[in-house]
Amino acid sequence: MKTLSENACFGGVQGVYTHASKACACDMTFGLFLPEAVKRGPVPVLWYLSGLTCTHENAMVKAGAQGWAAREGIALVFPDTSPRGEGVADDEAYDLGKGAGFYVNATEEPWAPHYRMWDYVAEELPGLIGANFALDMERQAITGHSMGGHGALTLAMGLPGRFRSVSAFAPICNPSGADWGRKQLTAYLGADETAWARHDASKVMRETGFDGPLLVDTGTKDQFIDLLRPETLASAVAERRQQGELRLQPGYDHSYFFVASFMEDHVSFHAEALEA
Amino acid sequence: MKTLSENACFGGVQGVYTHASKACACDMTFGLFLPEAVKRGPVPVLWYLSGLTCTHENAMVKAGAQGWAAREGIALVFPDTSPRGEGVADDEAYDLGKGAGFYVNATEEPWAPHYRMWDYVAEELPGLIGANFALDMERQAITGHSMGGHGALTLAMGLPGRFRSVSAFAPICNPSGADWGRKQLTAYLGADETAWARHDASKVMRETGFDGPLLVDTGTKDQFIDLLRPETLASAVAERRQQGELRLQPGYDHSYFFVASFMEDHVSFHAEALEA
Repeated sequence: MKTLSENACFGGVQGVYTHASKACACDMTFGLFLPEAVKRGPVPVLWYLSGLTCTHENAMVKAGAQGWAAREGIALVFPDTSPRGEGVADDEAYDLGKGAGFYVNATEEPWAPHYRMWDYVAEELPGLIGANFALDMERQAITGHSMGGHGALTLAMGLPGRFRSVSAFAPICNPSGADWGRKQLTAYLGADETAWARHDASKVMRETGFDGPLLVDTGTKDQFIDLLRPETLASAVAERRQQGELRLQPGYDHSYFFVASFMEDHVSFHAEALEA
Repeated sequence: MKTLSENACFGGVQGVYTHASKACACDMTFGLFLPEAVKRGPVPVLWYLSGLTCTHENAMVKAGAQGWAAREGIALVFPDTSPRGEGVADDEAYDLGKGAGFYVNATEEPWAPHYRMWDYVAEELPGLIGANFALDMERQAITGHSMGGHGALTLAMGLPGRFRSVSAFAPICNPSGADWGRKQLTAYLGADETAWARHDASKVMRETGFDGPLLVDTGTKDQFIDLLRPETLASAVAERRQQGELRLQPGYDHSYFFVASFMEDHVSFHAEALEA
């Protein structure tokens, strides 16, 4: 693991690190914010998964999460959204290939050799940061935006016991039923939709739910709301009797101005679960 | 004036607007955050001037100011840092020409026709926003980062009675005495240093000071601190017996992680002055 940068930030340190990833068979870069509280012992971890076209950097720079995480004594991890590098398959479209890993393990060519973002976020990166930083890996929570909200929801439900709480900003809720999903799941996982089921938050919610609290915010003026399909997750949460809060925020769109506006709520929500 | 974008943000609206500037003889773009409080009447205004290489966008996206401004009911204005466009003179260096207007009215060729950022920020843009938005132009304050800190300090002292308070993040304090300054002031204003004096915050502080409170933060690990020369401003403030607070923040560098870390303090500082 190599340090690319470390900046003092809200009394803690915002670092950027790179490492050779086995899961993705390429070098991967991630951001990690460590609050000042780490000086007194291992701190809990909040994962932030980003959306289409993003890297590790977007949320780290634009979401305003570090101030709230510093106040609560929580570390933040910002993984990249796909494998990277010259040898990695890509597509001309912004929503497939690099910057669009969708947090799955691809089984189809040409994606299978590198596009293993589920394993990367679920297994490899937790191992790496747990071994290299003073983090309490028994206390983890997860959030994300858009495609990253999809990733947060599906990882939280797919890894029972791993995360104490899950939240999302404008998540893709039903990729099997929308153009933000069908195209990518077909490309990465093949045409057989049975392989998609565990990557559809609404379906997994209906099947298994999440053993902990849930918070989801979506803007009523989100320009992509027809692709996000919050109604499918809302009905699944209600059918499941899932503990949770789904909020439609009047006037907000899909941008980081929306994410930043509700970041304090999300960090406070996770802090409560992580303290328990 | 044309609206380029408007995003809901912390209960208010983050807008980006463009207009034909007389002062700069080109189209100019600026950001304006209006808090929800504007619905109840005109709100006070905090100007944020950006640094080298920045546009109107950097602080708007990375400084995390809107949340605090929303809480205090203050509007934020984010001007660009230089004239723009194909017909505008430029230089290969990052620190001269576009993105590096230094908040002066250039008198030398090839800069004189467009590089009139003092007039733009001091006269034209206040007139435009005062006429088009519900702003209380009797209550203004100003801050900035690096070159923008230099601009905030020199404008605040150069326009007595205009601003109730002034602050800066890692400002260029003594451009007459450092490479961030001598090169640009020579280019824009000519070799006669008497024309530079009103654009050197340390000199103006020693001569006239500021009729109100002052707050300046600089990181002890700022990688440009030898160019900023905070010691010249510190001694001028002390010699002048200027009401003010100069803080050296341990471990912080020149980045927006530093700016964001202390933004709450600066907005609160200005809010107190603007309420009076």
